Amino acid sequence: MLTYKQLIEKVQLLFKNESFISEPKQLYEPIAYTLTLGGKRIRPVLLLAATDLFGGNLDEASNAAIAIETFHNFTLLHDDLMDKSPIRRGKPTVYTKWNENIAILSGDAMNILAWRYLLKQPHPNLHKILCTFEKTSMEICEGQQYDMNFETRDDVSIKEYLEMIRLKTAVLLGGALKIGALYANADEQDIEYSYQFGIAIGLAFQLRDDMLDAYGDEKTFGKQIGTDIKDNKKTYLYLRALEKGDAAQKERLKTLFSCTPDNPKEKIEEVLEIYNKLDIKKELENAVADLHRKADEKLTAIRKNKNEKATLREISSMLLDRNV
Amino acid sequence: MLTYKQLIEKVQLLFKNESFISEPKQLYEPIAYTLTLGGKRIRPVLLLAATDLFGGNLDEASNAAIAIETFHNFTLLHDDLMDKSPIRRGKPTVYTKWNENIAILSGDAMNILAWRYLLKQPHPNLHKILCTFEKTSMEICEGQQYDMNFETRDDVSIKEYLEMIRLKTAVLLGGALKIGALYANADEQDIEYSYQFGIAIGLAFQLRDDMLDAYGDEKTFGKQIGTDIKDNKKTYLYLRALEKGDAAQKERLKTLFSCTPDNPKEKIEEVLEIYNKLDIKKELENAVADLHRKADEKLTAIRKNKNEKATLREISSMLLDRNV
Repeated sequence: MLTYKQLIEKVQLLFKNESFISEPKQLYEPIAYTLTLGGKRIRPVLLLAATDLFGGNLDEASNAAIAIETFHNFTLLHDDLMDKSPIRRGKPTVYTKWNENIAILSGDAMNILAWRYLLKQPHPNLHKILCTFEKTSMEICEGQQYDMNFETRDDVSIKEYLEMIRLKTAVLLGGALKIGALYANADEQDIEYSYQFGIAIGLAFQLRDDMLDAYGDEKTFGKQIGTDIKDNKKTYLYLRALEKGDAAQKERLKTLFSCTPDNPKEKIEEVLEIYNKLDIKKELENAVADLHRKADEKLTAIRKNKNEKATLREISSMLLDRNV
Repeated sequence: MLTYKQLIEKVQLLFKNESFISEPKQLYEPIAYTLTLGGKRIRPVLLLAATDLFGGNLDEASNAAIAIETFHNFTLLHDDLMDKSPIRRGKPTVYTKWNENIAILSGDAMNILAWRYLLKQPHPNLHKILCTFEKTSMEICEGQQYDMNFETRDDVSIKEYLEMIRLKTAVLLGGALKIGALYANADEQDIEYSYQFGIAIGLAFQLRDDMLDAYGDEKTFGKQIGTDIKDNKKTYLYLRALEKGDAAQKERLKTLFSCTPDNPKEKIEEVLEIYNKLDIKKELENAVADLHRKADEKLTAIRKNKNEKATLREISSMLLDRNV
């Protein structure tokens, strides 16, 4: 079994050896730029980890690993345009470095490029792999739409929020594992456990992200604290505080989340004060811990011995114990 | 063999019987809106015509027919956003009826939806079909990028222009025929002739479009005459006039194509006068006639008898003799 370190090196090499440049340059340069910006490469690593766990040939799954990262980066590219986010991974986003039309079109091409990589390697399970990829891709669009819908709704439930992050974030981690397992021709039950493991770590990862935005250490987190509060983003913390707070707290939160002051410091402090009074941080920690446990259960259920599953356990710890 | 009329009825029924609505509605309503706006449905008709010609089962190819029209409509949806075109087929475009983010995301979902339809029907040639679809899709993005590049270039050659419209328009007609033929398991040579037939009618169709914009009858064409001139669009007419004109005419054309007067009537008249002096209309008619002949040659080369090929001949006549 390859370790996490070995897998990430393998993935980095895959991207290093791949040329994404072709003609017309104006179409392919933003693609190459996006795909070489870096990032955690967690999805291709999970995909190859699953192939490895179930005894598959990593070379057969390599193009799918590139495909899933290409698709993920396509969604970031279009999300950044939709959110008008100027910076990603410390660099200007495509729509700021080039323009909006280039961002739309190069994103469209990346969506197609993912299919090109998937189609490169014939495999007995290819139809299942493609169907998994298609379903996952569509779910991510649905998740993004729910996220956009939530911006203008003031009655989003925690259940709806969890379903949104399942679609927007978790299914691609689950899908990566499932596709990796399909390349190794794992049996159906193990594929399903792998998928559920991915869903649980994906949900936990996103909830931790919500927490770090409010309670992270700015130095190690690498992002400004309170950005979600500043941007009136309806995170788990906000939605749970709305459920749990008394009438006055609810009213105040709704008021605070409908304004965008030039200097958000006071707003962030006041929101955090309400969260703290309601002990929302603890609740979120419990929710993350529950999901971590669920992920462990699914991993345990996979019919491989503990040593073989060490890499997946390592990846989930890295993702969920992170304060970066 | 089904006639054109029978095929278009079949295609219209396919779209009528399909529900494109799912949750979240905000994502799927623009998709359903776009796919039920109508249009000539020429790509799915060509696909099924090829399946029929080579003795395939039309039911097996039906989902691919929906797929290719879905992909085509996705490109129109994103193109309209990029071009800021408010109207398509007499109705508001998605980005005007909803908003830009909805247009980006529902377009992305349509791109994926095309793959869903292609994957629905298992077929021995499915891998070849998917590879054809992927290659075609990517070429269309490349064509759109070249088209965007040409807007800011003043040295576009006719050769480059023809390559741009081959990618942007013709390959999807060729691809539709090739995919249809693959469902019927036609032999390689016939598939290639079918593809080349599609390329030739696609190029001719686009060149006729350039001509109708300048010389069409407004009543039957259904669009305003001179829109390309008003919008400084570098069509075959403009590029050929630049090649053929003397220094003064070139200068004048370039000047005229760098301004956008509020009342374009005089500009359109002056440009048409230059085209007429240089006999550009005749050149374009010759180019279209050459392509029509080439299409006929490719159709003749397909090893089926004349009666069997009557439907494809009918479609090409309808496309190329149109003044609408």
